[in-house]
Formats: sequence, C-alpha cells, structure tokens
Amino acid sequence: MEGVIRCSANYVPLTPISFLERSAIVYRDRASVVYGNLQYTWNQTLQRCKRLASALAHLGISPGDVVAVLAPNIPALYELHFGVPMSGAILCTLNVRHDSAMVSVLLRHSEAKIFFVDHQFLQVAQEAIDILSKEGSKPPLLVFIPECDQPSPYISSISSISSSICTPGNFEYECLISKGNTDFEVRRPKDEWDPISLNYTSGTTSSPKGVIYSHRGAYLNSLAGVLLNEMGSMPVYLWCVPMFHCNGWCLPWAIAAQGGTNVCQRSVTAKGIFDSIAQHKVTHFGGAPTVLNMIINAPVSERRPLPGKVSVMTGAAPPPPQVLYKMEELGFSVTHSYGLTETYGPGTICTWKPEWDSLPREAQAKIKARQGVQHLGIEELDVKDPVTLKSVPADAKTMGEVMFRGNTVMNGYLKNVKATQEAFNGGWFRSGDLGVKHPDGYVELKDRSKDIIISGGENISTIEVESVLFSHPAVLEAAVVARTDDHWGETPCAFVKLKDGCNASAEEIISFCRSRLPRYMAPRTVVFEDLPKTNTGKVQKYVLREKAKSMGSLAKNNISKL
Amino acid sequence: MEGVIRCSANYVPLTPISFLERSAIVYRDRASVVYGNLQYTWNQTLQRCKRLASALAHLGISPGDVVAVLAPNIPALYELHFGVPMSGAILCTLNVRHDSAMVSVLLRHSEAKIFFVDHQFLQVAQEAIDILSKEGSKPPLLVFIPECDQPSPYISSISSISSSICTPGNFEYECLISKGNTDFEVRRPKDEWDPISLNYTSGTTSSPKGVIYSHRGAYLNSLAGVLLNEMGSMPVYLWCVPMFHCNGWCLPWAIAAQGGTNVCQRSVTAKGIFDSIAQHKVTHFGGAPTVLNMIINAPVSERRPLPGKVSVMTGAAPPPPQVLYKMEELGFSVTHSYGLTETYGPGTICTWKPEWDSLPREAQAKIKARQGVQHLGIEELDVKDPVTLKSVPADAKTMGEVMFRGNTVMNGYLKNVKATQEAFNGGWFRSGDLGVKHPDGYVELKDRSKDIIISGGENISTIEVESVLFSHPAVLEAAVVARTDDHWGETPCAFVKLKDGCNASAEEIISFCRSRLPRYMAPRTVVFEDLPKTNTGKVQKYVLREKAKSMGSLAKNNISKL
Repeated sequence: MEGVIRCSANYVPLTPISFLERSAIVYRDRASVVYGNLQYTWNQTLQRCKRLASALAHLGISPGDVVAVLAPNIPALYELHFGVPMSGAILCTLNVRHDSAMVSVLLRHSEAKIFFVDHQFLQVAQEAIDILSKEGSKPPLLVFIPECDQPSPYISSISSISSSICTPGNFEYECLISKGNTDFEVRRPKDEWDPISLNYTSGTTSSPKGVIYSHRGAYLNSLAGVLLNEMGSMPVYLWCVPMFHCNGWCLPWAIAAQGGTNVCQRSVTAKGIFDSIAQHKVTHFGGAPTVLNMIINAPVSERRPLPGKVSVMTGAAPPPPQVLYKMEELGFSVTHSYGLTETYGPGTICTWKPEWDSLPREAQAKIKARQGVQHLGIEELDVKDPVTLKSVPADAKTMGEVMFRGNTVMNGYLKNVKATQEAFNGGWFRSGDLGVKHPDGYVELKDRSKDIIISGGENISTIEVESVLFSHPAVLEAAVVARTDDHWGETPCAFVKLKDGCNASAEEIISFCRSRLPRYMAPRTVVFEDLPKTNTGKVQKYVLREKAKSMGSLAKNNISKL
Repeated sequence: MEGVIRCSANYVPLTPISFLERSAIVYRDRASVVYGNLQYTWNQTLQRCKRLASALAHLGISPGDVVAVLAPNIPALYELHFGVPMSGAILCTLNVRHDSAMVSVLLRHSEAKIFFVDHQFLQVAQEAIDILSKEGSKPPLLVFIPECDQPSPYISSISSISSSICTPGNFEYECLISKGNTDFEVRRPKDEWDPISLNYTSGTTSSPKGVIYSHRGAYLNSLAGVLLNEMGSMPVYLWCVPMFHCNGWCLPWAIAAQGGTNVCQRSVTAKGIFDSIAQHKVTHFGGAPTVLNMIINAPVSERRPLPGKVSVMTGAAPPPPQVLYKMEELGFSVTHSYGLTETYGPGTICTWKPEWDSLPREAQAKIKARQGVQHLGIEELDVKDPVTLKSVPADAKTMGEVMFRGNTVMNGYLKNVKATQEAFNGGWFRSGDLGVKHPDGYVELKDRSKDIIISGGENISTIEVESVLFSHPAVLEAAVVARTDDHWGETPCAFVKLKDGCNASAEEIISFCRSRLPRYMAPRTVVFEDLPKTNTGKVQKYVLREKAKSMGSLAKNNISKL
C-alpha cells in the first residue's frame, strides 16, 4: 500500500522485556519483589536484570543459548525470567522435585551452557553435573544462589565486593550481578517468534518433552493472564504457583506489565499464605487444587482475616466443587483456569457470569469447576473427535478431545519434530484431555485420555468419581485409577487420604459413592494412603496405576463380596 | 530451532476480529449494543457483522478495498468496525462535521468503493457524490442507514422483507444485512500488518492525511485500551468519543474483547450522559475536555446521581486542571490520556499513584493534567531535540518534541510516502507537540509546535495561559493564539467564552492572568466569542489565528494603554 513504511518507529517485536523496561519508568519506586526482609523497586529490578544479562554475555552466552535454573520461588528466579532473555538466551527452568539423574538428562537434552542453582538444591545439581562429567559430556557452568532474604551488600556498596568470592570458576549470583553493567545493550529478539524459554513437561512420562515458548506467545499470554485474573494496575501477587512450572503461568512477565509486587516465598504452607496475605495486602495468587485444599484444611490458629478482596486462580488439575465451595466460604474469590505446558499454562478461563450469583453455592461451585472458554490469547478452543476432527455436539455428554489453536500455543518440542507434528496434526494442538462441551459453549474435562477407565464398555471419568469422593466429609485427598478386572476389563480403584482424626472404612466410602453415582462408576477398591504428587500439585496417577496393577486382577468372587 | 513448526495451531495473525468471534461464544447472550429501544446480544452482533461482510463481498468488495462511512455513534457504525474488516476491506470513517467538498476530497483520495451514510448526513453525502460525478470520477455506491433505534423487522422475520426496498441500486443498511449470509467465511488478514482502517486527521490542515492502521496495531491498542481504562470484563461503555475519530480510540474493538455493552447515542449532551449512566449503569466513558466542561456546567436539574464508579478517560486536548477537579467533585474518576490519530488515539496514560491521594485536590488535578507515560502498546515515549534526537533532561523545564516508537504507531500516510518519511525521520514518530519531561518520567505537553507563541524571544505555552484563564470563575471556554506585534514579534491573544449570566471585562481577565503568570505570558488582547471547534472537541486554533491576524498588529501605543 503506497505510503506505508515499516521501521523502528512503528514495528517492535513483541517481548515481555518491554514490560520491565516500561515499569522501570512508570512504577520506578514501587516494590517489584518482596522476600523476607528483602525488597526491590522496579527501577532496581531493571538494573539488576540488565547487570545479569551483561554478566551472562560476559560469560560467553550468545543469542539462542540455553541457561538452566534449579530454584524455588525466590527473587533470583524472578530476575532470571528477564535477565536471561535480555542476554538473548533461552531460560530453562527445572522442577526442583527432580532427582539428579533427571536433572542430568534435561541438562544434556537442553545443552544448557550455564546452570543457576539455589543453595537448597546444590547437592542434586552437583550430582547431575558429576553424571554428565562421567559420561564425557561437557557440563554447564554452575552459578550458586545463596539464601538472600536480606538486602545484599552489593546493592548499597558495589565497590566493596571482596574479589575473593568473585574469582573465576567460583560463581555466585550476587557477585555476578555486581560485576554486570547497567549500560548493557539489551539483546532483544530479532523476530518475536524467537524462543524465550524452554519448559520440560512434568515427569509423568519417562522421556520428557522440552516445550518451546516464543517471545510473542509469552507477551500475549501475559496480557491474557492480566485480563483473566481481572488484575488492575499494581496488583500484589503471592507466588504459590512454581515459576519453574510453565514459567509460572507467564505471570512473572504479567506482573511486570502491570507494575505489581511479587511476594516470593521458598515454600508453600497455609500459614505462610495467610501471613503473607495479611502482611503484604495480597490481591491475587494462584495454586493447584492441592494448595486450595491445604488452605481450607488449615487449623483455625493459622488462619488470618483477609485484608481485602483476594482473587485466586486455580488450575493444573480440575478442582473438586467442594474445594471451590469451601474457599468461597473463607472469603476467597476463586476462578478456574485450565491449560497445559504446551499452552503457556492457562489457555481457558471459566468466565463467571453475574446471573450465576443467585444460584445455590454448591451449584455455583459445580459451574466453576468447568474448564470454561478460551482466554483472549487463544484463538479457538474446541472438543473434537480425534480422528475426524469434527466438533462434538454441545450437549454436555458427547466426549471428545480438547483442542486449541492460537498464538499462545508452543512453537514445538525441542529436537522432536515427530512429537511436534503429532501434537499439531490437523492444524490443532491436541491436548490429550477428554472433555465435553456444554450447551453454553463451556468446556468441561472428563479425563486425560490415558486416565479414562473403560468398564464393561462404558467410559468412566475418574474426575467425576473423584469429585464425589471429595464431597465425603472425612476425605482430604482422592485419586481414582483403573484396576484390571477379569469380568469388566477395568474397574475404578480409589486411593484416599483421610483428614487428620477422621475415620472411614472402604465399605463406607464405596457405599457413599454408590448412593451418588451410577453403580458401575463407584470404586470397587479403596486404598488408604498418602498420594504421590508432582511439585505442581498434580497427583502422579502413573504411580497409582502401577500400584493398582501390582494388586492384580479383581477376581469375580471379590466383586460379589463387595 | 529443531522441533519447531509454525502452523495454524500456533500462529494466527493478530486482528480485532478475534475479539468478536470469542465474545459471541463467551458472552453470547449478554448485551453488546444498546441504542434507544434497540438491543443486541454478542451472538447477534457477530451474526449481523458476518451478514454485513457477506453482503459487501457480494457487492464486489475485495480485500484491500476501502469502505467509507459518514455516521454518528449509532449501532451501524459499531458493526461496520467489524463487518468491513471481516470482508477484507479497510474501514474509512469520516468526520460528520465535514462539508460536502471535504467529503468529496476524502472519497476521491481514499478511492472508497462503498459509502455508508446515516440519514442525518444524506444531503452532504449526496452533494459530495454529485461533485465526484461532475468531475468525472466514479462515485462510490451509497448505502443509506435509516434511523434504527427500534428492533429491526429483519431481525425477527428475515423472510418477510419487502423486495421493493432491496432493489438493485437502492441500498439500505438493514436490507443489506438481511440479504447477507451467516455462513460467510470471514476474510481474515493474511498478514497482521495489513490495513484495517483509514483515519483522516481532523481538518486542521488543508490537505488531510490518511492515517493507516493495521490489524496488529488495532489489536494491541485495544488491549492497551482495556488496561489503561482499568476495565474488567463486561464493562458498560457510553459512546461520547466519536467512533469516526481514531476509530473511537480503538474502543469499539476493546469493548468486544471484554464482552462489554456499547451504549450508543446520536449526540452528546450533559443530560443524555447523566441519563444513560443512570439507566444503563455505565462504568466507563471517554471524552475531550469540552465534554467534561459540558458535564460540570450542566444545570442541577439535568444531573443525576451516579449508580456506581464511573471511570472517565479524557484526551484529545490537554484538560485544564480546574475541569478535572470539578469532575472529581461530581464523583467521576477521571484519567488523562494523550495521543494522536497517528498513535491509534491514546498513546500515553497519566498513571495515577496511590501516594498522590493525600495531596490537596488542586495539586492532584495538576498532576492529572500531565500527559503521563507510554501505555503498554507503545514501546518508547520521549521528549527529544527535534534536530539532534537527543533526549531533553527530565527537569520539567527543557522543552522538546514529544516522540513515540511502538507497535501502535500508524503504518503511514496513504499515498504520501514523503509525509510518512518525515513523520518517521530518525526512527521515531514525531508528534509535532512540544513538551517537557518531569523528574518522575511523566511527560507534560506545553504546546503544538505550531501553536507556541514566541514573544520577545521567550516561548509562551498557550496551554499554560489557557489553564489560568480556565481558573477564572466566569470563564467557560478559552483559547490562546499568537497575535502579531510590532515590538515583541508576537503576543498572546485570548478568545474567551463566558458562562451564561457571567460578566467580565477584558481588563479584568488580563489583570487576573497578570497576577498568576509572568507578565510577558499574560494575554494582551481578549476577544469574547464562541470558540470554533472540530467535532472531536478540539478548538480550531487555525481559525482563531486567522482572526487574530485580521486584527492587525498590536501597535506600541496599544501595549502601553494596557
């Protein structure tokens, strides 16, 4: 079109780096990061991230290199979300629950050049590096992150750094920052499609996949995140969702976009959550249903009144209606979002409609447990026949595979074109989750395709059975998997953890379920024990499936006994 | 990077069309557009816009064609913001204040193929078409938009359309929609950089420039608009800003993104604003300072109590602190934004900081009158020396030209590469506005470069003089321009409109200014009269400059007399 010119005045590749640079102007003196007695402003955070990027460049990091991290939700992990991309590199956050063998696998696969390690996980990291060395692989350079919940001596007086802790080969996080240069010219992506981070999907499979996020997708999912959390400017965000999980649902970048305050914490406890909310006037936090479960079951002595409206985003696993209901009773405003690592974390939002306010609270919780509709970053969400790609009818009954299309779907799996092709087969991202579409267009998950139980030819949604188990007053946690059955093929097997001081027999639990579900859906076996979980709060169903398998088949005589 | 695949699953060109398609699912039964007794839902709006796009395609519109409109803030103009881009065409909204000669110039320059005309402006449009015909240019096809503040007969019963009003060559808006097809395959942009609209800058120059907006820029400025207005989901937006002006600051698209309700009105009056707010529980509206002035000067009989928080975005001209202060007194929450047609409307936001809440209200209004900082869509905002491009010091004193860089800066001026090159010279968009930067990074306008008065070598900001004039209790409106002066070169000449029933002499006004400004800044001439304004509320200073010129030079004896 005549008259059009594309240049630096009107075209800038989208990147979350812009959020930080803007907030360092607009919100320069407002608290960016809080951790114990440590507090930074947005201007300080920009300066620190620039120093970090400069130090990485000085250590030889080039655009496209991978920088790995093993750390909980501490300020350093927040800063790495900007500092690493500002050096042109790709941030690879590792799950702190991994053992050294898994960490070595991921370091090798990602070819990480530098590895930031929080002091708490130093041993695992060292062992992983030893494994790589023994194999003859070149291990990454390790940078040690000491505990730092006090203002660093380097902040007030950079010239006073003892050179002894900055000697070559002995890298320490604050020391690296102190040596960095705030005049560093930030290496912005040449193309917004360039990768910003690498997220290995949590260890539910033996060969983890490295999901690649782009600057464009991260930028757009951050803005979608602001909107789906109904965040105004300057929110106070409490970090319960691990930043190493889907880059904390992209919220490290989103909070920078809005000039908010990041309240960091090393570990997640009910007491810590209530205390932080009261002390910092937290406005928003997020967490898997297990975190909500922790909150509603906190002893009264640990609870504190909420200082104002506290919005909670839950996701990562379908929240049992009972849990949602009890959170609301405590005064929290809970919204439910759903997504996968491949969709940058949240991809849907169960948008709440005012007309639902007048429904009974239990009915409200049931509506809220639905996964909902696509958020603004996702172009299309649908439930489809995985073979024909035909949309299922919006009848709340017909199951299909949940699929996504949009700019906040990953670039692909690192070094695995085949897996990428399979995931995008037909031009849609196939989630592997089974669900239905309600007449109002809202999607509801019924199961992971691999979790579904097929009993006598009938599909049983383990989520539905778990939801009934959660409504039993003595049940703290529950998970249902398939157990082989001579007659039915498979039958539901429930793993249950009871609340402290509560008692219930397997027979009681089973008859409770039978009175609330079609008979074939009720568990035939109940096992009482602690549930194995990933650090992101997901129950490790593959562990439970192995257990159920080791129990052997449920013979006919057992059935008749029950 | 190995493993990456770019396909329809993970890449979609950004376009506001996505907002409407999503809201038709998420907010399907919520009110999208309200006008008199007419009300549509988001699902209906999508269906109507698809029909419109289909009808345009049927009339021969191809991607890249221009479709022009001459209409006030009625539902049809809202629908055209989606329907035209969905046909692949470019929407060109014309200012309803233009005369037929100007309209004919713009139709010829834009080469519009179809021209939608509201009944109120039919005569101007017909005359413009006659001019084109006489010149031998091919005029666009005219589509007549009748008054439609009642549900259309076509909505309930499409089959009952009288064919007589749908005959070829006799096009009527509702008839066109009724003939459209909801199965139409929406023509999305192939490239998000493709143009979505064409906005002629308001008639302050004799040769208007056609500013080209892209789908990408419109998408990003819509999201920035949601955030800078602190809009949650489902806002109720009252249309005072003309949608033909910078596409209503991109808010037609932004309101669709948030599933809000658009309250349309043909004309803007204080009574209409108060009534609509009360009736529809309006949460947000926007308007130039002249609209705010209208509100604060409304007779008590026309005022109605606000039903809740009402956020008002003002812009288009620097708001006098007195006006802001009085709006707040009435209970409105006012935010100030600044931008130009070339920045898709708003480019900055005077972000409010909680620490300012405790300042005296007059001090607050002064802070709020600053243009502020870049919003999320703009990458960089700066005040620079127009020759060296060096940033001015942030001292609140040194003047420079306000410049922008970012994705929400226009693609360029249609058919005017030279003007585009000049505007982007040095890789920044040059606003032509003069301003200073405060130590906190906030920008404040001092004047348009062509409005500044140079008196005895001193720069006089007409905005500062006007701000003092506005604080005079008898002054309703004021504008200051240069008057030639034998001795000083130029001196300030004030045009003032007094409030009804108020009196003040020129001498009183001048001495009021002298007691509040350096002597050289106070007006030497005061003329009492109605101020000529554009429909966007901007005072037409070029008209006043002509008047001041016709008064001749202010001779020395006049000065001494004053």
